[in-house]
Parts: sequence; structure tokens; C-alpha cells
Amino acid sequence: MGKINIGIVGAAGYVGGELIRILSTHPEAEIAALSRVRSEGNQDLADVQPQLRDALNNIPRRVAAFDAETLGEVCDVVFIAAPHGQAIAMAPPLLRKGARVIDMGADFRLKDPSVYEQWYKVQHTEHELLAEAAYGLPEIDREPIRSARLVANPGCYPTSASLALFPLVKAKLIDLSTIVIDSKSGVSGAGRSKLTLDFFFTEVINDFKAYSVASHRHTPEIEQVLAEIAGESITLSFTPHLLPIARGILTTTYSVLRPGVSEGQIQQRFGECYQGEPFVRLLPDGLLPQIKHVVGSNYCDIGWKVDSRTNRIITVSVLDNLVKGAAGAAVQNMNIIFRLPETMGLKHPPFVP
Amino acid sequence: MGKINIGIVGAAGYVGGELIRILSTHPEAEIAALSRVRSEGNQDLADVQPQLRDALNNIPRRVAAFDAETLGEVCDVVFIAAPHGQAIAMAPPLLRKGARVIDMGADFRLKDPSVYEQWYKVQHTEHELLAEAAYGLPEIDREPIRSARLVANPGCYPTSASLALFPLVKAKLIDLSTIVIDSKSGVSGAGRSKLTLDFFFTEVINDFKAYSVASHRHTPEIEQVLAEIAGESITLSFTPHLLPIARGILTTTYSVLRPGVSEGQIQQRFGECYQGEPFVRLLPDGLLPQIKHVVGSNYCDIGWKVDSRTNRIITVSVLDNLVKGAAGAAVQNMNIIFRLPETMGLKHPPFVP
Amino acid sequence: MGKINIGIVGAAGYVGGELIRILSTHPEAEIAALSRVRSEGNQDLADVQPQLRDALNNIPRRVAAFDAETLGEVCDVVFIAAPHGQAIAMAPPLLRKGARVIDMGADFRLKDPSVYEQWYKVQHTEHELLAEAAYGLPEIDREPIRSARLVANPGCYPTSASLALFPLVKAKLIDLSTIVIDSKSGVSGAGRSKLTLDFFFTEVINDFKAYSVASHRHTPEIEQVLAEIAGESITLSFTPHLLPIARGILTTTYSVLRPGVSEGQIQQRFGECYQGEPFVRLLPDGLLPQIKHVVGSNYCDIGWKVDSRTNRIITVSVLDNLVKGAAGAAVQNMNIIFRLPETMGLKHPPFVP
Amino acid sequence: MGKINIGIVGAAGYVGGELIRILSTHPEAEIAALSRVRSEGNQDLADVQPQLRDALNNIPRRVAAFDAETLGEVCDVVFIAAPHGQAIAMAPPLLRKGARVIDMGADFRLKDPSVYEQWYKVQHTEHELLAEAAYGLPEIDREPIRSARLVANPGCYPTSASLALFPLVKAKLIDLSTIVIDSKSGVSGAGRSKLTLDFFFTEVINDFKAYSVASHRHTPEIEQVLAEIAGESITLSFTPHLLPIARGILTTTYSVLRPGVSEGQIQQRFGECYQGEPFVRLLPDGLLPQIKHVVGSNYCDIGWKVDSRTNRIITVSVLDNLVKGAAGAAVQNMNIIFRLPETMGLKHPPFVP
Repeated sequence: MGKINIGIVGAAGYVGGELIRILSTHPEAEIAALSRVRSEGNQDLADVQPQLRDALNNIPRRVAAFDAETLGEVCDVVFIAAPHGQAIAMAPPLLRKGARVIDMGADFRLKDPSVYEQWYKVQHTEHELLAEAAYGLPEIDREPIRSARLVANPGCYPTSASLALFPLVKAKLIDLSTIVIDSKSGVSGAGRSKLTLDFFFTEVINDFKAYSVASHRHTPEIEQVLAEIAGESITLSFTPHLLPIARGILTTTYSVLRPGVSEGQIQQRFGECYQGEPFVRLLPDGLLPQIKHVVGSNYCDIGWKVDSRTNRIITVSVLDNLVKGAAGAAVQNMNIIFRLPETMGLKHPPFVP
Repeated sequence: MGKINIGIVGAAGYVGGELIRILSTHPEAEIAALSRVRSEGNQDLADVQPQLRDALNNIPRRVAAFDAETLGEVCDVVFIAAPHGQAIAMAPPLLRKGARVIDMGADFRLKDPSVYEQWYKVQHTEHELLAEAAYGLPEIDREPIRSARLVANPGCYPTSASLALFPLVKAKLIDLSTIVIDSKSGVSGAGRSKLTLDFFFTEVINDFKAYSVASHRHTPEIEQVLAEIAGESITLSFTPHLLPIARGILTTTYSVLRPGVSEGQIQQRFGECYQGEPFVRLLPDGLLPQIKHVVGSNYCDIGWKVDSRTNRIITVSVLDNLVKGAAGAAVQNMNIIFRLPETMGLKHPPFVP
Repeated sequence: MGKINIGIVGAAGYVGGELIRILSTHPEAEIAALSRVRSEGNQDLADVQPQLRDALNNIPRRVAAFDAETLGEVCDVVFIAAPHGQAIAMAPPLLRKGARVIDMGADFRLKDPSVYEQWYKVQHTEHELLAEAAYGLPEIDREPIRSARLVANPGCYPTSASLALFPLVKAKLIDLSTIVIDSKSGVSGAGRSKLTLDFFFTEVINDFKAYSVASHRHTPEIEQVLAEIAGESITLSFTPHLLPIARGILTTTYSVLRPGVSEGQIQQRFGECYQGEPFVRLLPDGLLPQIKHVVGSNYCDIGWKVDSRTNRIITVSVLDNLVKGAAGAAVQNMNIIFRLPETMGLKHPPFVP
Repeated sequence: MGKINIGIVGAAGYVGGELIRILSTHPEAEIAALSRVRSEGNQDLADVQPQLRDALNNIPRRVAAFDAETLGEVCDVVFIAAPHGQAIAMAPPLLRKGARVIDMGADFRLKDPSVYEQWYKVQHTEHELLAEAAYGLPEIDREPIRSARLVANPGCYPTSASLALFPLVKAKLIDLSTIVIDSKSGVSGAGRSKLTLDFFFTEVINDFKAYSVASHRHTPEIEQVLAEIAGESITLSFTPHLLPIARGILTTTYSVLRPGVSEGQIQQRFGECYQGEPFVRLLPDGLLPQIKHVVGSNYCDIGWKVDSRTNRIITVSVLDNLVKGAAGAAVQNMNIIFRLPETMGLKHPPFVP
């Protein structure tokens, strides 16, 4: 039996570059086709990902315009790394051709199309696909991914927040009305295509700022994930900030503990939830995670501390937004779908930048 | 009448450098003596602050060991920028000689010596001075500073948090039990004297992390300031993080609004509190502050947003930790003490780094 | 007699921001008009220079479209900070109205219009003005500036290289055919208007590269300056590189010493050339300059070392490209023109970023 | 036949971390022992390389004090990443036990012990080993490495400079008396053990400087490599600079072309020298290398341009100082010694930081 034939849409972007980096050393993957979201003609891969010039001889050198027919025929699975709104149109023809689709964008994450439309200001025309799509966060629910034709790969912020809060919400250790999520992300999360002054070097260096306060589109996604775990609706505060680094997210959360909850219980619940999970590292007592220790890896590192003075639990979680927050998680989902060891191609140690 | 004769203890550090930078262009200041905290013999200023080589001809070229006798005689006011614990011994002989003292450290900030000893692990031997010392945050209470012999210059985090929360606490717009403070600071806050691997370039660049979670020494200081405003004790959560930048603090706070509080009320209260304050800039609706816009200045920029979904108010405040968070605030206090216009020497526009 | 009325064209850019920062505290300057290069209507200053929001009450809040008539009437001097090619059309009507013009761009630097056209690919239509314009590098030749109506403010690279090589060329200490100039600049030199991917944060951070090798437009400018000093034509190699910092240039030069030249002679010549120059700091023997020590100041720091093994002299010079490399030098030129002390408004110590 | 048993001395440093990162995924390598240079007792690997916590299950968790007996018995090859001077004592007992030694330091690079002693200020007591050691730059001379017991892994600067100049020197295309080498390196080159203020975050960020001008210890190493190629002694100028990034070196060289040398000849010679070399990438005409494109990889990218105005050739070369400049090159040498494909474990694409 041959390798998995893979198509990457958005091969010129940061997430696309990471997909190529990871999949090019994946023992069972064969990158069969690369395409851009916006290109018209063909381009040389070395022009859009210059670090790959003469670097890999097992991948296509050509980045073509998106063509669902060809991709769907050649590929067993297509990763779509495109701005939101585009996968709604791209996914259906690929699926009809028999390819699986892993969408890195937001188009199939929110189960309620009206919530999607309210936050993303785009009409959703594929309600059935939306219902069918599996949310690809295996540490929380692996089952739906196994049989999925279409996976909605989670957002980078939602992964960092959900993995930190999952044990607390599942075991009902916290008061769900008190959740505050304060996240900080590197600039690569903004992608490579929007050339606004906001992401210019001289504007970002030496700076730090909050953005989309009380209005970021990942808010309903986090709420959806946690609500499903809790079995009840959750409304929380989520504030993203922009760090002057390229890669990495750190998320700090604050929640009030339910009466009588002990540190021992918390430790036990975290242990139960993540025992055997290859990509979640629970830090030993007294240590808290830092971005530098997960860059380049598929790890999400989590630490926590109880503030006995306020009866709050503070969690800190970190991940590389381009890996566990995007491309790595997507490959993890691919491994699940294709019945491969979930860690295949993903166990390289972090790269300290 | 002559200029104010000024002594700076800790002239080799980052705060010391800022004091020199600001005071050297202050029309009524004369830097009369520079001393180091730890030096034994004399040093050339250009060896410890190399940017000042041949730069200023109106300040001493010599940095001497600390000598309370000489400083107290020569100086009208002495700024102490030393690690905590040192000013407890330095201040009394300076005061006895008739000099005013503005302590940039933590030694005279916490009114209750047992709280100081609990958080700083140093015994406090100057209880009377502690009682006498004025807390130097004029935007909240200017009166005690006017007649102070000894000013406790506020911590950088406490200033950023207190100024953001002051109007909310004063007007009782928020539920005081719900306050969460998430702060992010540049590395210069760590000073120049502790040469630990933690603050090495290769360790900090591309990184971000939380530290001293639920245990940072500025927590009781913030609580003391807000409790005095509220007229009741406050317990809150405060988490500092380390940004890969040299200067600047951004503080995000979260609090639940009391029932019935409207955005209009909030806006009115912020306006009332800071009307006429030269160093607090309230950003127009829809804008939030960023560190780059206050670096090098004595401004604290504040913005806020109500999250109607959760009924929380989120505030964002920024300042330059070496200026409004240290040296600038100290000069502002000096101006108050010496009956000078409060903005004298402090109105240079920000320096965009 | 009143203050000097000043107009700034390009007030939304990085150089424009520095002009405002410096001139707003200049005792004899009155910023009378701000205009943008490309704007059509009026804009609020706080929208294009947000750090200045509510910061200065002695400057206009409005940034208008360029209008030579108004500017020429209102202003004694107009600073033009515009992309090359634009000042050719802007300067003549301003001069006709009686205003002096200090052009921060390249349009009036190269005395030979055919050299300009060859390197800048723009036709030069103002040959007489070109002949009349004074090159504004006072440390090398102050005389023509005193009586100039039009000053060509030098390029940032040329200033850093020319000041380092001036004493060596003037005293004929080096073999003029052996000059190699290797320069490294921060990103602000690229300005704020070209939004190309090259200057995106994620592309520049953690990177370093050479650019315009053997083809940078500042090459003929450096050659022109040095040739005038030498009294003979000079051809040299100049390579610029892009540093992942916002501000600052460091230039390293290499030249073979003429037979018999001693270190003592070199030291003497540097001393002679820069004795009394307020903005050139010659570092003591054994020290070499670094960018951090000049940021925010109008200093050019210079150090050198003789490599006795190869008989080469290596010079290292640094400056802030937005200050001594642009806005600061322009104010220095203004001071000369208007018979003010040359250091007025420019002696603030460096700002360590 | 089993895997190669590997020992790493200096496992707590940056180079040690890279050796672990690379060797942990090398198909024929088994990391058998980790030791620190300075530790006394044992340490947990996660304490000195925290990014590796729970990350690799095929390597020792313990970092022990250096013990030549044990290492020599357990290991087929020992990599020594220690400050210069230490390997002189460490290598002999390891070799006596039958282990191969790859020294990442400078102790066995300079063939003439008096040159070593002159530049490194350390006495060299192992003259025979020095004579025996193979210099490990396979792109220039692979033969001696194949049979070496002891490999002197090249310095990071020498590799970047030598690979750029090799074709020019070998084919005698340049005047050997005119070589100028201007290098710029990230901070990780300074290692993790010297905690001086010079490498503190707040000192390095936003800065750039030259250091060790006309006196850097890599100068005689570069001269030795090029002299061997040329068949005659070479004296050149080499200036290193410190970049505010963690990883990467860019080297710019300048040389005068011999009369009549054409660009076609140069291109041909570069092609001949590096045809088939897996880790040298010659950039296409018009492109020049940048650090970001080689980070994390074993590539050295090279570009060049002829400056026809000055008849100089300017080369630009980049590499990751911790990979091709240290750990990657060492693994490449190991592959050669053990008759493995030279690229084994080293063909991962670059990691864009």
C-alpha cells in the first residue's frame, strides 16, 4: 500500500510552510500537490518558501492555482490553509472527488451557522457539511475525527485555552461564570497575506498591545468547546494580545474554584485527562511553561497554580501557534484519520529559537 | 534661589540612567552627586552609563560609593534606586542631614511592616519612617506628597494597575471581589545587577512567560492602594509576565460590573478622575493603548471596553516602567515637593523605539 | 523677533515624527504646518503619529495635503521628508515664496544630474537648484550651509561612512583605491510608506541580510563627499545590510594605510578634524561604538583600530539613522542657517532603548 | 550491528542542546551518555535543557560530571562542547579507551601550537594529537576525516568565511592580499556559561556592535584553511559583530579580482567546488542569502556579486552557527567517520524562526 497523497492549499503562507516542513519528513506522507489561495499562474516553491530552495527532493517544486478537480483526484487528503470564508467553497468539490479535507481555517468550527455568520460576517452556505465536520482537538474528543471526511482544525487560541481548562471544566472544579482568558500570541498568527502597517517590523518591535478586546472571533469557539464538555452553555472573557515574537502563544486563565476543591483534586484531574496524551506536557509543581520550550514542536505545555488568597486557579499554557496551533495538529488529525500512530512525524523535539 | 541639588544612589542601573537622562534637562535640577549601591571606589560615569560619554557637561563625571554624610550635606533631595532592603538603612542618615528622600524601591511602600516582612523576607527596622512616608502616586493622592520628607515611589506594576482601576474602585462601579490583573513587563524592570541566566539575551528573545504567579511582591501594594480608595480591604489576583522587550508595561484588568452600571457612567468617572491630570491619557472610544506610544514619556495611557456578554469591564493601561513606573514618577514627586510645576522636565513627547 | 516658523512635509512618516519630536522642544522653533506627502484631505495628527495624542499643545493637530502656496507663506523653513523624486517639484514653489527648504531626500545631493538620473531612475529637471543646493554635512563643510536657501540633508549611510573616513581621506593616510564600507541599518530607514512583505515583522525578526549589493544609491553620494575632500575621484565598495532593530546604523570601513602612517598620526588627525564638534564623539583607545549608545541623540560615535598584521585601518561608526542620519542633522542645519547655536534643541542625552 | 553509542560533553549548553536535538532523530545514533563540563553531581536533563522535558524517551535523563573512563568505555564517539582549553585534557583518556573524539572547541584546530598559544593564551600540551587531528570541514577536504580518531570541528565564523572564499582561492581568482571578511553573528555563539552583562537581554536588544576587531581568535583559523588551499600564506582582515538575534551568522567578504577574471569563470568555479555537496546551496544569480532561510538546518547558503566599478567580488554566506557552525557539522563528520551517508539525520528542512 502506498503513502498518503497530500495536497496543501495555501502553500505560500506560514501555516503552509509548516505543513511542508512537517509532512516532508513524515514516513507515510507524500506531498502530491501544492497550491496557492490567490495565485493565478504557477509559481516556483522556492519563490514563496525560499528556505526550501534545493532543500527537499520529494515534494513538488510547483505551486499551482487552486483547482479542486485535480487536487481531489490526486490527493487522499487536502489541507486548506486559507483565510476564512474560502474553504466553504473549496471543501465540497474536494470531498465529492473522494478526498478528505482538513480545514485550518474557521469555516467548519462553529456548529451553529448563525454564530459563524455573526462573528465572521460571512454567510455560511454549507450547513450539512458543517454538521458533518469533526472538530479536530483529539485530546478532548478523538472519536469523531477517526471517521471524519472533513475536519475543522481548531484555532490556535482555542487550543491553548481549551486544553488548559478542559480538566477543570470536565470535573466541575471551577465556577463556570468566572472564567477569564488572557492570551498573548506571536505575529505569525496573522499570516503572510495581509500587508497592513500593523504588522510592519518597525511597528511591532518593542511593542505590545491588546486587540479585538471583547470581540475576537475565537471567543465563541472556546465557549463551544467548553460548553460541550460542561454540558451547559458558558460565557467567558477572552482577550488576545500581540507579542513581538514570530511564533508562540501563551494563555493565562483565571477561574474561581468551587467550594472545597483541593490542589490534590486538581492535580489528579489534570493527570487523568492527559495521561497517555503524547502532546500535552504537565509541568511539575512549581514550574510554569514558557513559549521557548515548545517552539517547533507539537507540544502544549500546561502549568497551574492555586491562589489561595483569592481561591482562584491560574493556568498557564503554551504552544507553537503554527504547530500545535495549526499544522502539527492537522497532521495529528491526519494520522488519526488514516489509522497511523498519532505521533508519526510529530515527535521531533522542540527547536529553541 | 539656586537650583535643587540632587543626589542619585544607584546611578549605574537602568533607573539611575533614566533619572540622569530626565534630570539633566530639568530646568530647576542640578545633579550634584552620583553614587553606586555596590561600588567600593570611584568610577567614571562613562564606564557605567556609556551612552553618556562626553554627553552632559552639567553633571558629575564621578560615581562614588554611597556615603550618607556627603550626600546628605550636598543634596536637597536624594533618589535611591537600590534593591529592596537597602533604603531602610540609607534613608535615615540622609533625612537626618536634612535631605528629602525619594525611594524608588519597595522599602517604604507597604504601611504594615509585617506585610512587608512577609512578602519581602526582610526585617523592617524603621517603623516610624514607614508611617511617615508618603506614597508617591499623585494622580490618586497628591496631598501627602507635598509635605513629605520621604516619598515611597510606587512600583511599576502597581502604578499601571492602580491608575486603570482607580475610577472604577472609587465610584464603586465594580464588584471588588472579582478583580483580575494580568500584567506584562519588559526586562529592564529586573534591573542591571542580577546577572542570572533568566535574563540572558538568548533565553529571553523569542520567549514569553509568566512568573511569580500568585506570589509577586507587588500584589499587596496594589491591594493597599485600592483598599484605601475603596475604604475596605481588597484581595485580588495579580500575574506578571516577562515580555521580550526592554521597556514598557501593559496591564490588562478584568472586573465584573456592579448591576446597572452603564458605559456612560464609566466614561464619566474616568473623565472626572483624570481631568487635568497631565500624565494620564484616556484614549478615545474604540482605541486601546500600546506600549510603543508611551516609551520614554511619563504618560500612562488607559483604555477600556465593556464586555456586555459577560458584564465585565476590561481595562488596558501602559506605561514605560523606567519612566512613569520609576524615574519619571520620582521627578514628578520631586516637582510636587519643591512646589514646581508638576510637569517640569517631564513633557518631552514619547520616544518611539 | 519671533520664533522660526516651520513646516514639515511628510509628517506621517518616521522622519517626520522625529522632526516633530525634536522641534517641539526646540526653544526657537514653532511648528506652523504639517503636511503629508500622499494625503488628500486633512488628517488628525494623532491618527498618523499616535504617540503624540494629547502630547504637545504647541503644534498643529491637523496634517494637511501638501500645498506649496500656504506652506511657503506661513513658513520660514520647510523640511521635506518625502520619497526621492518628489522634492524636485516641491522645492521650487516653496523657495519662490521665500521659505528655506531642507530636503531630507536624495533629490539635491548629487551634484551631477546625470549621476542622479543613473542611480535613481528619475529625471532631474532642476539643474540650477541642484547647483545651488548646499550639502548639509556641517562637520565636513559648514560654510555653504550658512547662506543656503536649499539644503540637501545627507543620506544616513553617507553620514556614517563619511564622518568615519573624513580624517583619513583629508590627511591622505589611506590608499583611496582600497576603501571597503560595510554598513548595517535598522528597518526604520525604509520608511513607513512601502508596505512590502520584506519589512513585515515575521520576515525581519531573527533575520539579517545584505541588500542592494554593489548597487545601492548611497554609493555615489559617499564617493562624491570623499572625492571632494580628497581632491580626486574615488571609487569604493559599499554594502548595506538590514538589522532586525528599528533604529540605528553601524558602519565598518576597511582601508589600507599608506606606507609609514602611524597610529599616533591617525589619532592626531581624528582629533584635529573633530575637535570642538559637538556631535562627533571619538571613543577612547580600545573602545568601539555601539548603536545603543547613540539612539535618540544627534551623536555620531567613532572608533578605529589599526590591524598591524594587514596594515589596514578599521573604523566603526554609529548613529541613529532617524536623528543624526535625518531629522537631527536637519535641525542642526536649520540652526546654522538661522544663526542659532548649532546644538540648540539637540543636546538631549541618548535614549537607551 | 548496533547503533553508534554517543557521548556528549557539555550537554547543558546551546551546542549540547543542538547535538541532542539532531542526534535524537538520527537513525544510527544512540545517545549513551550526557555530561556537563562543570557539574559536580548529577543533574536531570530537564533542568538544563527544559525544552526536552518528557520529550525524548531514547536518551539518558541524567547529566553526569565528566568522567573519561566511563565515557570512553560506553561510547564509540564523544562530542566535546566545552570552552577552549578543556579538550586538551579530556581528549587523550577518551582516545586511549578507544572512543573517537569530535571536539567542537578550538583546541585541535590550529596546526601550529605556538599560534594556538599566541591567540588563545593557553599552553598546548598535546602536540602529537594536534598533528594527528583532522580538521572537519568536509566540503574542503573530506579525506582526512574518514580515518580520523580525533576531529577538530571548525569554528562557526571560519566555516562561513572559508566556504565562501574556497572556490575563489582555489582557482586563484582573487588577489590574496586584499581579502576583507566582515561577519555578523547571533548571540548563541557566546554560549550559555559566561554570564556577563554584555550578553544580558536589555544590553543586546536594539543594539549592534563590532567586537574583537583585528584580534578575534578565528582569524588564524580562517587564514590556515585558506592558506592550505592557496598553497601560500595568507593574511586577511576579519571583523566579527554581534547581532540581536539568537542564531545565525552572515559573512560578507570583499576581494579584488585578478585581472581578466570573468563572472562566468567565477560561476563555473563555484559550481565545480560545490557540485554534489549536499549542504552548500549556491543561490541563483541576483539572489543573496539571508539568515532566516538556514536556521535549524545544516545548510551554508552562498551568493556573490561582482562590483564592476571596483573590480571586487563580494560574497555573502549564511549558516546557523549552532548547526552547520557546530552541532550539524559535527554530526556530518561523525557520519563520514562511521561510513554512513553524509546527510543522515541532517536533511530536515530549515526551521523559519
